[in-house]
Amino acid sequence: MAILENAQRGKYTPGMATSRARVRCLGIDIGGTKVAAGLVSGTGRILRRARVPMAANGSAAAGLAAVRAAVEQLGSLHDVAAAGISSPGPLDQRRGVVLNPPNLPCWRDYPLARALARALDLPVARVRLENDANAAALAEARWGAGRGYGSVFYATLGTGIGAGLVLGGQLYRGRTGNAIEAGHLSLERRGPRCGCGKRGCIEALASGPALARRARARLGRPLKAEQVAAAWRAGDKGARAVLEETAELLGAWLGNIVDVLEPEVIILGGGMGRLWWQWRATLQRELQDWSLNSRAGEIPLLPARFGADAGIAGAAALCFEAAN
Amino acid sequence: MAILENAQRGKYTPGMATSRARVRCLGIDIGGTKVAAGLVSGTGRILRRARVPMAANGSAAAGLAAVRAAVEQLGSLHDVAAAGISSPGPLDQRRGVVLNPPNLPCWRDYPLARALARALDLPVARVRLENDANAAALAEARWGAGRGYGSVFYATLGTGIGAGLVLGGQLYRGRTGNAIEAGHLSLERRGPRCGCGKRGCIEALASGPALARRARARLGRPLKAEQVAAAWRAGDKGARAVLEETAELLGAWLGNIVDVLEPEVIILGGGMGRLWWQWRATLQRELQDWSLNSRAGEIPLLPARFGADAGIAGAAALCFEAAN
Repeated sequence: MAILENAQRGKYTPGMATSRARVRCLGIDIGGTKVAAGLVSGTGRILRRARVPMAANGSAAAGLAAVRAAVEQLGSLHDVAAAGISSPGPLDQRRGVVLNPPNLPCWRDYPLARALARALDLPVARVRLENDANAAALAEARWGAGRGYGSVFYATLGTGIGAGLVLGGQLYRGRTGNAIEAGHLSLERRGPRCGCGKRGCIEALASGPALARRARARLGRPLKAEQVAAAWRAGDKGARAVLEETAELLGAWLGNIVDVLEPEVIILGGGMGRLWWQWRATLQRELQDWSLNSRAGEIPLLPARFGADAGIAGAAALCFEAAN
Repeated sequence: MAILENAQRGKYTPGMATSRARVRCLGIDIGGTKVAAGLVSGTGRILRRARVPMAANGSAAAGLAAVRAAVEQLGSLHDVAAAGISSPGPLDQRRGVVLNPPNLPCWRDYPLARALARALDLPVARVRLENDANAAALAEARWGAGRGYGSVFYATLGTGIGAGLVLGGQLYRGRTGNAIEAGHLSLERRGPRCGCGKRGCIEALASGPALARRARARLGRPLKAEQVAAAWRAGDKGARAVLEETAELLGAWLGNIVDVLEPEVIILGGGMGRLWWQWRATLQRELQDWSLNSRAGEIPLLPARFGADAGIAGAAALCFEAAN
């Protein structure tokens, strides 16, 4: 890794900016319906951004054209040192290949890092691909709420529950790059079936769709997390119960995470991560109840810094990942 | 860490053996009823061993005297470079202090590493204390079934279920040294109460006592794991069911571990780890079923090399832990 460390040693770009703060990288965020691109400084500032719709079920070439279009909207890129791509998984991070994400049929087994390098006229060694949760974890560890902590557990709570672990500035990737899939930790062996095929994963119990199902059961309507939160603020007891139950599940999950990983900080991002301030007390209480670590409560539980920009910042952070 | 690396640079022992294979360390294994001590070579060979009974509920001084007695039985120690201690937790690894292990009341808040250093006339920087599961994990990673793997997940299955994770020759310890307590990962949020206070921990579901309870329910007698295994071999279908159920739980647990940690190898030790060959097929099948990683089945699932010597080898391995 450490594309920029290498670049700054002159390995790739003799003419590059010498001050770290002045280095600029490209962050490309692939979603199910859009591509976002941003020009990001070495301190994590997003200097420019662009957004282009993408048909995830189109051709691979059309998908790549959408990426190019988003990048072109950013304007001149003559001083860009490297590029990172944040994409839904599964993917082969080392080879820079998108494998078979259910929401991105256009790029099945597609060498996206190589294709982008060619399109941008960058050496392939200066383009990194990573799954979205890992990339966002890295951005939070380097520039966001996790700055200064030696070990950072990040979770993105939304339609799915993704997670990433950053140790000493490096992503923990596991044997084939699939760690850490903490959203598929099962808390109920006989619980509801998860999209992944397992039962009782925290994603099946406490993601956005799970919360909507709980809202439908209690309130008669399949509300989204933010709507339930608004109803709670307006005094609706049923809404409160729906959020409390979800927070209890997330807290139990985090307690188990602490027993296994004991990170120095826990960061919550994603659409539902924004509810953090409303369910913080419940999360904290359940986290301690579901950890045998008597000091679990000392671990800071923080909201993510990057909201809608998590994908762009995460992708760019890949260019700054600490070296081995 | 890397006590010996430092020692070999002459930092501590100018007169030490220069060849790594000829370095000798002391491994001290603290149990609930005994102290075992061993002289261990740099290649993990246990050259001499001794064992002394210890009253865990006696005085701290009497406990230390038992450790000294075991060490003295080993004979001349003039060439010993460093010492490691493997003890039940919880403990403060960095400060070398035993905190409040339920099975070791004699040493509540006791600075065991410092006391042992004084007793053996070793600099305190050359004595390491670690919990038994972590220490055994390190021995397996360095000298045992995990040799050559970059990331090693080790579990000891017995009265309790302990675990350790070794990355690049170093223990993963977490924020305060309490990682990884993977035996207290809960698979059944509403399951049986665990000794730790949580519900449905794998230790509550599949440790030796849990298996004995299952045997009593099915076979009418609270048999030990090895007795149940013998009954299975003799054709007892109830015994087979008891072992199968336990293996299914352990397999589900390992599948979840793979989703979070994706280690390069999984090693099973402890008294119940010896049943490995009998429940390997079930473990493998359930592990794959309970992991969304399509390549989970490629991860080698191996029996530990160190059996009754796991404590001594683990303690000695602490002296050889890779440096940061």
